[in-house]
Amino acid sequence: MEVYLDNNATTMVDPEVYKAMEPFFCEKYGNPNSLHRFGAGTHPKMVEALNYLYEGINAADEDDIIITANATESNNWVIKGVWIDAIVNGNKNHIITSEVEHPSITAVCKFLETQGVSVTYLAVNEEGTIDAKSVEDAIREDTALVSIMWANNETGKLFPIHEIGRICKAHDVLFHSDATQAIGKVVVDVQEVFLDFMSFSAHKFHGPKGVGGLFIKADVELTPLLHGGEQMGGRRAGTVDVASMVGMGLAMKQATNTMAITYENTHVRNLRDRLENAILELPETIVIGGKDNRTPNTTLISIRGVEGESMLWDLNQKGIGASTGSACASEDLEANPVMSAFGSDSELAHTGVRFSLSRFNTNDQIDFAIETVVNAVNRLRSISSSYAYTPKNHESQL
Amino acid sequence: MEVYLDNNATTMVDPEVYKAMEPFFCEKYGNPNSLHRFGAGTHPKMVEALNYLYEGINAADEDDIIITANATESNNWVIKGVWIDAIVNGNKNHIITSEVEHPSITAVCKFLETQGVSVTYLAVNEEGTIDAKSVEDAIREDTALVSIMWANNETGKLFPIHEIGRICKAHDVLFHSDATQAIGKVVVDVQEVFLDFMSFSAHKFHGPKGVGGLFIKADVELTPLLHGGEQMGGRRAGTVDVASMVGMGLAMKQATNTMAITYENTHVRNLRDRLENAILELPETIVIGGKDNRTPNTTLISIRGVEGESMLWDLNQKGIGASTGSACASEDLEANPVMSAFGSDSELAHTGVRFSLSRFNTNDQIDFAIETVVNAVNRLRSISSSYAYTPKNHESQL
Repeated sequence: MEVYLDNNATTMVDPEVYKAMEPFFCEKYGNPNSLHRFGAGTHPKMVEALNYLYEGINAADEDDIIITANATESNNWVIKGVWIDAIVNGNKNHIITSEVEHPSITAVCKFLETQGVSVTYLAVNEEGTIDAKSVEDAIREDTALVSIMWANNETGKLFPIHEIGRICKAHDVLFHSDATQAIGKVVVDVQEVFLDFMSFSAHKFHGPKGVGGLFIKADVELTPLLHGGEQMGGRRAGTVDVASMVGMGLAMKQATNTMAITYENTHVRNLRDRLENAILELPETIVIGGKDNRTPNTTLISIRGVEGESMLWDLNQKGIGASTGSACASEDLEANPVMSAFGSDSELAHTGVRFSLSRFNTNDQIDFAIETVVNAVNRLRSISSSYAYTPKNHESQL
Repeated sequence: MEVYLDNNATTMVDPEVYKAMEPFFCEKYGNPNSLHRFGAGTHPKMVEALNYLYEGINAADEDDIIITANATESNNWVIKGVWIDAIVNGNKNHIITSEVEHPSITAVCKFLETQGVSVTYLAVNEEGTIDAKSVEDAIREDTALVSIMWANNETGKLFPIHEIGRICKAHDVLFHSDATQAIGKVVVDVQEVFLDFMSFSAHKFHGPKGVGGLFIKADVELTPLLHGGEQMGGRRAGTVDVASMVGMGLAMKQATNTMAITYENTHVRNLRDRLENAILELPETIVIGGKDNRTPNTTLISIRGVEGESMLWDLNQKGIGASTGSACASEDLEANPVMSAFGSDSELAHTGVRFSLSRFNTNDQIDFAIETVVNAVNRLRSISSSYAYTPKNHESQL
C-alpha cells in the first residue's frame, strides 16, 4: 500500500483539475494576449478560473489576484516590492515577521538585512503561535511591513491574523500573510481581515505545481517583481500559463467547496485525529504546539528516542510518505527550526515527524499508517542509544 | 482549416512532450525535495530533463541551468541581480541594451532608470540588426552589463552575439543574451560564445507555458530574484514544477534534434519562404529588415495600405492566426516598436504582419494561408483610404 501523508509539502493534482487543464497543452495553446482565435479562445476558461479564485477567498471585484509562479514568488514580490517602494524610495526601514515563517519569507528578510533593512523576527509562544500583542509592541515609526503566515507549515498552528490585521490597520502599516498552508484547510476570507497582501500556491491544495497567486487589496500599490509585458494589468509580466491558471482556479473551487461542506473538517480531521491519538498512546510522545487551533490535516509529533530521519526511512520502506518538517529544508539535516523556536532541546528537536493529510486519504490508509508507525517506533526505540528502553514502555506498546 | 502562424508568440506543446509530462500530475506528484519515494521518485526524469537542457545548448557540467517560470523571470533576474551586485553594492552604474529587446528587458531597464541607473539603448541599423561596434563604443568604465537578444522576436533577425561576446569579454563586462527566439531555430552553443547569462522559455519551442531557464556560466555570481528554499542549489527558490521541467527538457531535445537534422532549416524554412515569396509578389510589400540572417521560421512583412490589425481580423475569420508583432504588446494598438526603430514612417509602422511558423505547419496550410492573405490584401486595399488602388496593382494580384 502507498500512503501519502506529506500534503503540506505538496499534493496530488485532483484528477478533475487535471482534466480541466488538459485541453490547454496541445489544443487551446494560444497566447492569451494574442488577438486571434487561438489566443482569445483561452479567455472564457481563464475568466472562470479567476472567478473561482475570487470566490474562494472572497475577494472584492476591486481587489487584484495576480497569478504568479508560486507562493515563493508572491512572498519575494511583496517583501522586495515594499522594500523598493517604502524603504529604498520612501522613509521606512523596518519589517516585522516571525521566526517560523517559510524560508521564502525568512531568506528574503535576511537578504534585506544585508541591504541595511532592520528586521524583527517575532518568537512563537509556548502554544506555538504568535501573540498579536508582540506585533503591536514591535511596530515602530519606520515599520513598512508586517508579514505573518496564516497557518504554520510544520505544526498547522493558526496565527491570529484577524487581530494582527486590526493592529496593522490602526498603525497604518502594510500587512501581508502567507496563506499557503491555510487555503482549503480553514476559511480564508480576505474581507474579514485587514490584509493588504496574501500569498498562496496551487500545489498545496491539489492544483498543479508552478503556479500561485498574490492577493492585493484594492488601491494598494506594489512595484512589480517581474517587469515586462502588460499581462496581469501590468502587475506581473510573462506569458500567462493558461493550463496552470485554469487548474489553480478549479482547485481553489474544489478546495473551498469541500471545506464549506465541512469535508475537510470532518473526514480529514477525523483521519488526522485517529492517527495522532494512536501515536499519542505510545509513551513520551507529544504534539508540538498542542492540539488547539490548528489546520485539520496536520500533526507534528515528537517521539522521544526516535530520530525523525530514521522514522521516515522506516515509513518509506513500507510505502508511507511523511516528513520531518518543511520539504524546502529537508535535504539538509539541521534541526527543525520550528521545533527549535519552541525551545525544544537539541535532542528533541530532531525527533519531530510531520503527518499532513488530504481529502484523498482513506480510512484503510490510516489503519495501515498507524500499524506501521507503531512498529517503527518499537524497532527504533529498541536500537536507540539515547532512549531508555524499559519494560514499562514496552508493555504500553502491546 | 485552422492554421497557426504565430509561433513566436507561443507554440503548441509537442504531443510527445505532453505525454512525458502526464505522469507528474496525478501519479508521481511528490515534492522532489522530499526524502520519501514520492519525492525521490521524480528524480530520474528530472535528471534526464536537465541533461537534455545541457546538451541542447552545449553547456558545460560546471555551468548552471536554472529552471525559472519563463524568460521574463530570467531576464528580470539577470538585470536586477546585476543591479544589486554591481551597482547597488558595487561601483558600476551603466547597462547597455538595444531598442528592440523584449519588454521584459526594456521595462526592467526603464525601472532601473527610475532608480538612478544609466541605460544605453542601442538602435538597430538598416538591416534591422545591432552593430557589434556600437556595443563597443557604448561601453564605459562603469558598465555593469550588456544585454542583447540572440534573435529578434518580430523580424527573426539574428544579432552578432559571438562578436558582442568577444567585446564584452575583452572589456570585462558581463554579457547576457535573451535567446528565447533562437532556441530550436538556430544553433545555440554557449561554448562558442562568451556569454555569462542566457534566458529561454519552453513555450517558444513546443514545451509548456510557465517554465523557462537561465543559463549561468560557471563561477558567475548572481543574487537570486527568488530567495527562499534550497532548490536549484540555492539559486532559485520555490518547489520545482516537475511536470514542466520534464516537459521543457524533452522539448529542448526535440527542438535541437530536429534542427540538427536540418528539419527546421529545410521544412520550416521552405514553408516560410514560400509564404513570404507569394506575398512579396504583391506590389508595395517589403520584408522588414530584409531576408538575410534570420531565424528560418519568421517573416515580418509590411503591406502598404493594409493596416496590420485589419489583416489579422480577416485572417482570423478564415482560421489563420498571425500577429502584428510581440504578443506581449498586442493588446495595445501602438505602432510596432521594432518597425518604429527601423525608421518606418508612421503609416508604414502600422502595416506589419508577422508570420511565424513551426515544424507542425504543413504544405496544405501554407497553400491556404497564401490564398487567404492575397484575398485579404485585395479586399483591404480596395477599401483603404490611404492606398492608391490602381488597375496596375490589381492586375498584378490576379
